[in-house]
Amino acid sequence: MADVILVLNAGSSSIKFRVFAAKGAAPELVMRGQAEGLHTAPAFAAFDGTGECIGERTWEKGNAIGHEGAIECIGDFLRGHHEGYELVAVGHRVVHGGEAFTGPVLATSGVLAKLDELVPLAPLHQPHNLAPVRIVARRRPELPQIMCFDTAFHRAQPEVAQAFALPEKITSHGVRRYGFHGLSYEYIASVLPRFAPGVAQGRAVVAHLGNGASMCAIEAGKSVASTMGFTAVDGLPMGTRCGSLDPGVILYLMDQLGMDARAIENLLYKESGLLGVSALSSDMRELLASADPRARFAVELFVYRIGRELGSLAAGLGGIDALVFTAGIGEHAPAIRERVCKGAAWLGIELDTEANLRDGPCISTASSKVSAWVIPTDEELMIARHTRATIV
Amino acid sequence: MADVILVLNAGSSSIKFRVFAAKGAAPELVMRGQAEGLHTAPAFAAFDGTGECIGERTWEKGNAIGHEGAIECIGDFLRGHHEGYELVAVGHRVVHGGEAFTGPVLATSGVLAKLDELVPLAPLHQPHNLAPVRIVARRRPELPQIMCFDTAFHRAQPEVAQAFALPEKITSHGVRRYGFHGLSYEYIASVLPRFAPGVAQGRAVVAHLGNGASMCAIEAGKSVASTMGFTAVDGLPMGTRCGSLDPGVILYLMDQLGMDARAIENLLYKESGLLGVSALSSDMRELLASADPRARFAVELFVYRIGRELGSLAAGLGGIDALVFTAGIGEHAPAIRERVCKGAAWLGIELDTEANLRDGPCISTASSKVSAWVIPTDEELMIARHTRATIV
Repeated sequence: MADVILVLNAGSSSIKFRVFAAKGAAPELVMRGQAEGLHTAPAFAAFDGTGECIGERTWEKGNAIGHEGAIECIGDFLRGHHEGYELVAVGHRVVHGGEAFTGPVLATSGVLAKLDELVPLAPLHQPHNLAPVRIVARRRPELPQIMCFDTAFHRAQPEVAQAFALPEKITSHGVRRYGFHGLSYEYIASVLPRFAPGVAQGRAVVAHLGNGASMCAIEAGKSVASTMGFTAVDGLPMGTRCGSLDPGVILYLMDQLGMDARAIENLLYKESGLLGVSALSSDMRELLASADPRARFAVELFVYRIGRELGSLAAGLGGIDALVFTAGIGEHAPAIRERVCKGAAWLGIELDTEANLRDGPCISTASSKVSAWVIPTDEELMIARHTRATIV
Repeated sequence: MADVILVLNAGSSSIKFRVFAAKGAAPELVMRGQAEGLHTAPAFAAFDGTGECIGERTWEKGNAIGHEGAIECIGDFLRGHHEGYELVAVGHRVVHGGEAFTGPVLATSGVLAKLDELVPLAPLHQPHNLAPVRIVARRRPELPQIMCFDTAFHRAQPEVAQAFALPEKITSHGVRRYGFHGLSYEYIASVLPRFAPGVAQGRAVVAHLGNGASMCAIEAGKSVASTMGFTAVDGLPMGTRCGSLDPGVILYLMDQLGMDARAIENLLYKESGLLGVSALSSDMRELLASADPRARFAVELFVYRIGRELGSLAAGLGGIDALVFTAGIGEHAPAIRERVCKGAAWLGIELDTEANLRDGPCISTASSKVSAWVIPTDEELMIARHTRATIV
């Protein structure tokens, strides 16, 4: 009978899950899947470790099963595939751990109450991350649940990297730079020594370039600075998010264009970034394939802003030893990596063009002063590891 | 009879003026002064080129003389000190030239109408900059007036450095990164070859650190990138301005703290920055003299953010050859320069501690890979030069 850990990553309309065998120090993926369209046209699918579909279910349109129904469905599926496995814990991805949570934590009613208080800091995500914890607690109160935060890894940053230049009457509400994608960065930091032993105690910038995108400066395995700030809209331009923006622009949108908070939120989160600039797509593959000048400009802006943030983060580190690309674009778009690395020649990065086309893992030449890497991220595995370490 | 040029720098409640003898290529300061408190308790003072007071006038409290009264007073003063001088042109500092004005321009009714259209982009400054132009035009219609823009120098930047990742429906209103302090940077770029001949065609970052503060990347005398964006609140933290801020913070202030646009504007422009963080003062001299931990943190944050922006701008240039400090703090705070330069050791800057205490001009060692400088700025002289060049 092997112990397994269930990892849940819940959004507003979907729950993704993975099941890891918890043997030894390295959890191993056994099953994965998701329930989607929870409020519109729900659909469930599950796959084994080799990617073969081992479960499917759909509901008619208009069936709003919600998080409750999704958890029930995942539970039903797991009970039907439990031969030889025993579920010993559930790990959750939670976007916001605020200032207090600097690592994974066992879910208790006290902890959940504290995390409820952070909802105003992430109103679009935090409630959906917490709902499944309570549902599982009601159904299986004896099962330990571990919450892993996207913000926790960055709490190691110096105060000065986390501060905005705002008065205490504002910062006392928790208005500071939290940084996100922390589970991804923590995973990369944990495997980097395996790829680049010399960099383990050194200075690396990791570029997590997906539909959401950010960058993190890491020194000796610890976060030193990151591009995302108080929310996940700051920093690099993303699929549909604007990234860094002069706060005076928001005043202009209010005063001159008469926009309210919801209209501004929609603009900054849904209509900007690669989609907004290209007026074509939020998908980097489509943009790279397009000859449209606006698509080309969107790509150019994305690369340029990565380059500027790379310089800024290198300053936070006092120089860099390695640059790591990860997540969708980072792992699969050699054209973007090439342009970023060529723009970073001034930092001592010399691209190995052929290795880059092969997706690395090392994509710098042997003589490159700063090494460059492609390393696939695995946030769910990081959650499984934390969960296992917390319950042991 | 020597030709003289009057330079006006008008704000909401004051007008500063300088009179330059326009002989040869290098205008020479003859007189200077200001009319202040225009709407409350007006006061006028004027000084000759040696700094001796040569004119004074005060009004009783409650006398709101406005821009009209200030121009009349300056005109009266000039007529009383005109022996040997003939006023041949007036140069104005105008904060916003928008996308269209890439250099100084003769004030005509058509140009003024175009600049009126930019008022929404700088509602707190543009109307006050334009008012004196119309007043002088009414009183001395034959006198050429030249408008010099704080934005013009930055229009040479690549498109990608001026763009926000916003859709065209927003950018079409002129929402882009304009950059400011352009007359200061242009002046520094013009004199830099005299200090550092080797850098004239090279890559310099200029840190204009005053009560307003920004930094600019300059290559071969042209602006390549800058820290201020759409407004003068972006980039570095300043005396009372916040600098870069996650746009999501503004949504939080609206949604969770119930603040409206005017309250947010007041917070970001008047209550933040060094003053907001220290809860003590916006004046760097006071902060440097204080042992209060909040004052020390404000200074630390200021230095840190300069360091991060220096890395970002160096990336925009593909490396740097020189770093220049200017404006109030830049010219007179060796403690700040020392901390910035030591933090920038990774870029190849080696500080000459003694030269730094003497305020330079060169403050790097002979073996420093990147040179560092203290160069006093002179925006009014830049305006006088432009004015002279435009009317000749």
